[in-house]
Formats: sequence, structure tokens, C-alpha cells
Amino acid sequence: MGAAEIKACLFDVFGTVVDWRGGITRAGEALGRARGIEADWAAFADGWRGLYQPAMEKVRSGGMDWVPLDVLHRMNLDEMLARFGIDGLSEDEIDHLNRAWHRLDPWPDSVAGLTRLKAKFIIATLSNGNIALMVNMAKRAGLPWDMVLGAEIARAYKPQPEAYLRSCAALGLDPGQCMLVAAHNSDLLAAAGCGMRTAFVSRPTEYGPHQDKDFEAEHDFDYVARDFLDLADQLGC
Amino acid sequence: MGAAEIKACLFDVFGTVVDWRGGITRAGEALGRARGIEADWAAFADGWRGLYQPAMEKVRSGGMDWVPLDVLHRMNLDEMLARFGIDGLSEDEIDHLNRAWHRLDPWPDSVAGLTRLKAKFIIATLSNGNIALMVNMAKRAGLPWDMVLGAEIARAYKPQPEAYLRSCAALGLDPGQCMLVAAHNSDLLAAAGCGMRTAFVSRPTEYGPHQDKDFEAEHDFDYVARDFLDLADQLGC
Repeated sequence: MGAAEIKACLFDVFGTVVDWRGGITRAGEALGRARGIEADWAAFADGWRGLYQPAMEKVRSGGMDWVPLDVLHRMNLDEMLARFGIDGLSEDEIDHLNRAWHRLDPWPDSVAGLTRLKAKFIIATLSNGNIALMVNMAKRAGLPWDMVLGAEIARAYKPQPEAYLRSCAALGLDPGQCMLVAAHNSDLLAAAGCGMRTAFVSRPTEYGPHQDKDFEAEHDFDYVARDFLDLADQLGC
Repeated sequence: MGAAEIKACLFDVFGTVVDWRGGITRAGEALGRARGIEADWAAFADGWRGLYQPAMEKVRSGGMDWVPLDVLHRMNLDEMLARFGIDGLSEDEIDHLNRAWHRLDPWPDSVAGLTRLKAKFIIATLSNGNIALMVNMAKRAGLPWDMVLGAEIARAYKPQPEAYLRSCAALGLDPGQCMLVAAHNSDLLAAAGCGMRTAFVSRPTEYGPHQDKDFEAEHDFDYVARDFLDLADQLGC
């Protein structure tokens, strides 16, 4: 398929654009140093992320009204603090740690790749992260989004079809004019099921030593790229 | 008031950031030349804009479900074409003219001023324009928004309080941390009523020879500026 039909590249963010495991681990380590807390903060990051899908599933299943991801992250953080036996933190300290998701660092190629892609396409987030989270992350990291779409716009969490379809519709575009860029096979499959174009970008260190999937594209996606710079090359940017 | 409490500058767009009257007039003239239609296209622009508030009022009053501004613009365009006795246009031609609102040019200071303000604040639209309109306009004109907020996010048209309050809430900010920048006294009064900070920027040629208001700030706004560069100066950007 030629790139001519594609008007917008929409991006998964956690893991695809930014390194959540490194960022959350470092935020925990900083708190630990400040408060003298000994913990395996990488395991804390993995555990916190592990509660992510189950929390969204409560919303997807209708068991809970839609709330922004910041709220789900906080519920999960409270559980992780209890699980790790960490207490005595102030509300400000807990809130600051919860907002570590707003302060994640991009992969080395992300800003340069997005900047090239932006010259030719609308570039927007199609993440389960809420608007405030995505805007704050972009300001800090220099991610040059044209727009934040995804869960909060759609009031639905991926992989629900509404999350993809309402994001495309907000741009006034058909799904076939929009391409999801993601490091996760399952996300791309769901987008393809909605009629979107797909680009797999490998992020083989997203889960650190525990990564057991998404090393490579497992389906017939439109593009498969090593990183965002390779994707920009392939798309003629 | 110091600028330190302000985290986000939210902008009215039509008239404040871009010159709708010049842009719509030129779009009409281009169509007229292509199709041999003689018309007073400035009057056409004024009339089309004149139907803007009544159309939104149908939504605000509950007489009509919320629809994106593109849809209201099209309803109003159909009425204007009938009023001017213009027929025989193809659907593509009418749609292209309707999207002239996506192709408006910024005032000369807009891009440079926004670029300076963006270095210190979150900058976002708080317009009645829909997401697709605002994103397309920004791509073409180089408006460096961090985010498109306003009517479509809020499912409410200014000056309904929800349009302002839900835009601030989407950023995770209190209204007092957000400042509306607008060339219209009434818009700023409504924002102030929601607890937002306010900045008046004069655009004395917005309505061409028919301008009869908004030559100057008529209330005690937080900032009053000649243009976006002056506002950036005052805010220490």
C-alpha cells in the first residue's frame, strides 16, 4: 500500500513512544532515596503496569464508569504501595509518584522520528492515557503532537473499537486514512479490525528482562519498522 | 496578578488567531473566478458568519443535539448559497468552500506570538471550532498548539460554562490556572465568570468596515495587549 492515502499517523504511547519501565523505576528510586525506602523499584514498576489492563477491563466490561487513566493509575498505585509495605508517604508524595507517568522519557528516536513524520502527516496520540497526562508528557519530552486523541476523547479504552473509530472520526478521516503506529501486536490487530492502516515498530526492551512478546510483527501489518526513523524513511518523510 | 499561577493559555481562534473575514472572502472569490460567479464575497463572508451564533444557539438552547461546527457551517452555507442565488455547484465544490474555515490565515503576529508563549505555557484552542477544523487549520498555518480543546471536547458551545470548565478540566487544571486569550469582550466575560484568567487582544479589523465593537477591552481583564507579541512581552516569554 502506498503512503499517499494515509493522512494521519496515530501512536500508541506507553512502550511505543516512551519508556514507561525505565521512567517509573527511576521515579521510585528517587522517592526511595529521598525517604530512605529500600525496594526493588523495577519490580514495583512491573507490578504497577501489571495492574493496568485489569483496571481498564473493569471499565471496558461496564463494571465501572469511564474515568481518566490518572485515576486508574492512582487506584493501582495505592494497591502497589500496600503490596510493597510502603506507608507514611504524604498525599503530595503519592500524587507526585502517580504523575511519574506524565514524566516518562521518549525512546532515543522518538522526537526526531515524530518531527519528520509531522512534516507529512497529522501526528496524534491514540493512547489510553488521558489528555492531561499526554499534554504534560509532550511538553516535558518535546513530543510534537498535532493532537491528543485516544481514550479520553473516545470515552473508551483500547482495544475497544470505539477508541480507534472515534479518534479517526474526530479528525474527520476514515479509518483507512489513519495508521496506528504501535509496538504491540494486539493493539495493531484491533486497529486493523477497525479498518485502520498499521505500522509495527519494535521496542524489544520495553519490559526489560521480562519481555516475552512483541519482539517482532506477528501479522501482516502495512509497515514494519525498526524505529521511528526507519518508519519515516519507509514513508518518504 | 503575576503570570506564575498561569499554566495554560487557551485561545479563542476565529477573529483572535485567524482572519476569518479575509479568508472566507478570498475563498469565495476563488470559487467565483473558477465558476464565473459574480458576487460580493465580503458580504457573503459577513452573512455566513452572521448565521454562526443563531446556529449555535439552537444547540445551546437544547433545540438541537450537539453537532460539530463543520455541520453548522454547512447548514449555514446552504442557506447563504440560496440567499445569493448561487446554484449549480457540485457537492465537492460546496464541501471545499465549507472547509474554507479550515484554511484561514493567521494574523501576522499569531504564529510568532504563540511560539513564544508555548515555551512557558501550555497553549491550546478554546474555540467553537471542531477538532478536525482546528487540526487542519493548524497544520496549514503552522499554529503550534499543544492541544485542541473547546466545543468538541466539551460537547458545549461557548459561552456555555461547560465549554470553558471542561476544557480546563481536560488539562487537569483549575480554571484559575488557565487564561483565555480572546479579541471578544463577551467571550472573556464568560470565561471570567468560570474563574479563568483573561487576556484581551485587540483585532480592530476582524469585521472589516462593519466592526462596531471589541475595539478595546471594556472590562477589568487580567491582561490587555495589542497583539500576541505584546502579550508574550507582558507575560515574560
